[in-house]
Amino acid sequence: MSYDNLTLHTDKYQINMMYAHWIQGSKDDGAVFEVFFRKLPFGNGYAVFAGLERVVNYIRSLRFGEEEISYLRTQEESYEEAFLEELRSFRFTGQLDAVPEGTVVFPNEPLIRVEARVFEAHLIETALLNFVNYQTLIATKASRIRQVAPGDGLLEFGSRRAQEADAAVWGARAAYIAGFHATSNLRAGMLFGIPTKGTHAHAWVQGHDTEDEAFRKYAEALPDQVTLLVDTYDTLKSGVPAAIRTAKLLESKGKRMNAIRLDSGDLTYLSRTARQMLDDAGLSYVQIVASNDLDENIIFNLKAQGAKIDTWGVGTQLITAGDQPSLGGVYKLVAREKGGQYVPVIKISGNPEKVTTPGFKSVYRIISRETGKAEGDYIALRHEKLNAGEPIKLIDPVHSYIYKNIADYDAIALLQPIFQAGELVYALPDLSTIRQYHEQQLGLFWPEQLRKLNPEQYRVNLSAEAWQLKMDLIHKMRG
Amino acid sequence: MSYDNLTLHTDKYQINMMYAHWIQGSKDDGAVFEVFFRKLPFGNGYAVFAGLERVVNYIRSLRFGEEEISYLRTQEESYEEAFLEELRSFRFTGQLDAVPEGTVVFPNEPLIRVEARVFEAHLIETALLNFVNYQTLIATKASRIRQVAPGDGLLEFGSRRAQEADAAVWGARAAYIAGFHATSNLRAGMLFGIPTKGTHAHAWVQGHDTEDEAFRKYAEALPDQVTLLVDTYDTLKSGVPAAIRTAKLLESKGKRMNAIRLDSGDLTYLSRTARQMLDDAGLSYVQIVASNDLDENIIFNLKAQGAKIDTWGVGTQLITAGDQPSLGGVYKLVAREKGGQYVPVIKISGNPEKVTTPGFKSVYRIISRETGKAEGDYIALRHEKLNAGEPIKLIDPVHSYIYKNIADYDAIALLQPIFQAGELVYALPDLSTIRQYHEQQLGLFWPEQLRKLNPEQYRVNLSAEAWQLKMDLIHKMRG
Repeated sequence: MSYDNLTLHTDKYQINMMYAHWIQGSKDDGAVFEVFFRKLPFGNGYAVFAGLERVVNYIRSLRFGEEEISYLRTQEESYEEAFLEELRSFRFTGQLDAVPEGTVVFPNEPLIRVEARVFEAHLIETALLNFVNYQTLIATKASRIRQVAPGDGLLEFGSRRAQEADAAVWGARAAYIAGFHATSNLRAGMLFGIPTKGTHAHAWVQGHDTEDEAFRKYAEALPDQVTLLVDTYDTLKSGVPAAIRTAKLLESKGKRMNAIRLDSGDLTYLSRTARQMLDDAGLSYVQIVASNDLDENIIFNLKAQGAKIDTWGVGTQLITAGDQPSLGGVYKLVAREKGGQYVPVIKISGNPEKVTTPGFKSVYRIISRETGKAEGDYIALRHEKLNAGEPIKLIDPVHSYIYKNIADYDAIALLQPIFQAGELVYALPDLSTIRQYHEQQLGLFWPEQLRKLNPEQYRVNLSAEAWQLKMDLIHKMRG
Repeated sequence: MSYDNLTLHTDKYQINMMYAHWIQGSKDDGAVFEVFFRKLPFGNGYAVFAGLERVVNYIRSLRFGEEEISYLRTQEESYEEAFLEELRSFRFTGQLDAVPEGTVVFPNEPLIRVEARVFEAHLIETALLNFVNYQTLIATKASRIRQVAPGDGLLEFGSRRAQEADAAVWGARAAYIAGFHATSNLRAGMLFGIPTKGTHAHAWVQGHDTEDEAFRKYAEALPDQVTLLVDTYDTLKSGVPAAIRTAKLLESKGKRMNAIRLDSGDLTYLSRTARQMLDDAGLSYVQIVASNDLDENIIFNLKAQGAKIDTWGVGTQLITAGDQPSLGGVYKLVAREKGGQYVPVIKISGNPEKVTTPGFKSVYRIISRETGKAEGDYIALRHEKLNAGEPIKLIDPVHSYIYKNIADYDAIALLQPIFQAGELVYALPDLSTIRQYHEQQLGLFWPEQLRKLNPEQYRVNLSAEAWQLKMDLIHKMRG
């Protein structure tokens, strides 16, 4: 079975719509789709875009092989053989623009824009959303955790609780983009070049007659990487004293123990007491790593209580985004070709926030030249040119009576060309470059917009022309 | 990059422990590990075991290739070359027993038992937990949904919100095991033989000048598979009337429309009104499919309100287990070889429920011959033989003053041999067999144990001997 071919990683309705277009002779009509989400996760003030590298690899390897064709033939008697034949030569030949990974992004702005034959644009919806929704969610969660522990070590430890194997590695990568320092998952390390960290399990201690023996044997084997898990039997009575003895043994061989790890119990009390014990033993260089179902709220509280923890191992709550395990990103048609021209289209909804913004659009980040900070994002129709220096009016897309004029700004286009006429035109940056870029992105915002609780809202605005087009289409469809 | 090689889908500490055992000469010592979880998810009364097929494929394909070896060499200077050389010929040569997929399972009982060289047993922990935690979680969530809509159609629609690609397909499979009828994901369909379903997106409607045109063109292309999404503009004023006209058109060609699909708004009101409109038009055969962030609680309420929905499309909340996105399954050492014999080991914790149950154990389901129902599960040490007919005493492992005696029973061993001496000895059942087996499993329990809210607790008991061993080891470790 070709488990690694993701071409059928799509919803059946995509193939059905491709087939219907094929039958009706409309398969080559152009279509413009946008990927965006409507609501920030976790009550956060921003999201961190991730998933583009996965999207690029996916688009490049789209191929209906013999197995996929044979399978589709069994799935729908209606499919004509000539349709299946056409799938054999299917390639993505369209244009795809996206914001770079690590970009700080906001609701209702296009993160990916696809302009392609409708035949191609349908197929890729499911996979694009699957990759971008998950990876952006985890990068955002990781960024929240980093906001509460900016100077501390942050380790991604979630593989055993991740939602299957892909989530473990792509989630580890997303966390690294947003500022985590390492992962425990070796496959993620190998695939993406993320630093890896790991010590030993409770089983190592259980597998020896005493904690002292277990620690000593581990330290003998890996003397330069000794972090000892001290909670197998009794953290303060047995684990920490044994770790101290092991550290002294290492000192006698000219080595320094890295850290002890706490994995249960009251982390504030245990870390403060263990810190004192280590310091009293002259081991102030031995650090303390903590884990145990941590998230940004627990870490924030532990730090406020004075816990003495240098490095946080974060597992389940990060890799699954435990408090909100999905980002509701969608892929919506905004324009379609009709008589050789693109016409804007809209989706109406009883819920005003679900009405889509029609038209072939661009999105800019408006940077104040005075402060160097972002004033707002600005969605304009493609033909609108922003001449820096010319004042623009930023209109809130929902509450249109809220707007501000801004004059002294730079406008940075967020969408970058990734594929043009099916060719990859974007050099995928390496992971450390993405990480640095993300760090720079955060510098564009005020601390009030980045804080964990009740952040100040950053606005995504429509141009006057984009807003008017939306109003016109709503009235047309309603009336 | 060998993306499909999962051998390094493990935590770094596993390799470090393997290395330390290798250095210390203990790598070939036998070890017995158990996979179990401590707490049922979602407040449910049971869980549905899934993930074994994935585990089997993983174990069989474990290979350290050139790329993995080269990567490990860069990760840890301490690793001796002879250790890396030994990894080249690494194979799983141990014994693995597991409960079959689809089995109804409970906290604190072994779902998988691994008896192997400690060198091998460490490596596989992370992947086993990753697969079993996720798939068991989703099968359990799907089973809850099925409990509230036992006679209805259930479609898995979650790919776009799944936590990456593996979750989409293995989650779809888990849902099917627990009674879902189809998935939208074609790759899941192809890989596992799950029936697939799909209609069209809002974009299909937006891509035409009118809803009538869109529906007609779709129905022309796939006349035997017509389910029309009716909420692109206005469900009752425009979508349902256009769908009715399309159904009449199909009737004129001797065809019958399948269904309409509601994807937003008040599903009770819309479904009742749409049902009436369809019936009034003589289209009582046209069914109603509903979707929109559904879960077992929303479906339960919609049904209680008299919604007229035949089939439920369940996406995000199922595929991510939205209200509890992780199962805390663990992999714990219960016995280790010492001087040629297995000795039981324990892990103590400040939290009484986290103290492990030591020893090489088996688990039985005790079925009353009178009622045919399960009386409780019974964990005994391996050497204890259950002679059916001889009375046994079921002791609650936490509240040991709670017990019951039972005489007229059958004892069914839950753990089946999967690998023996590294050879696969288990014939993986096909998916429909697993599904039927799961259905039979449910028949062993009382409705009160299966209900969604406040289910009656089913007990997992220890044998007197297993209980005594646990007490002895606690006293030994504490004293």
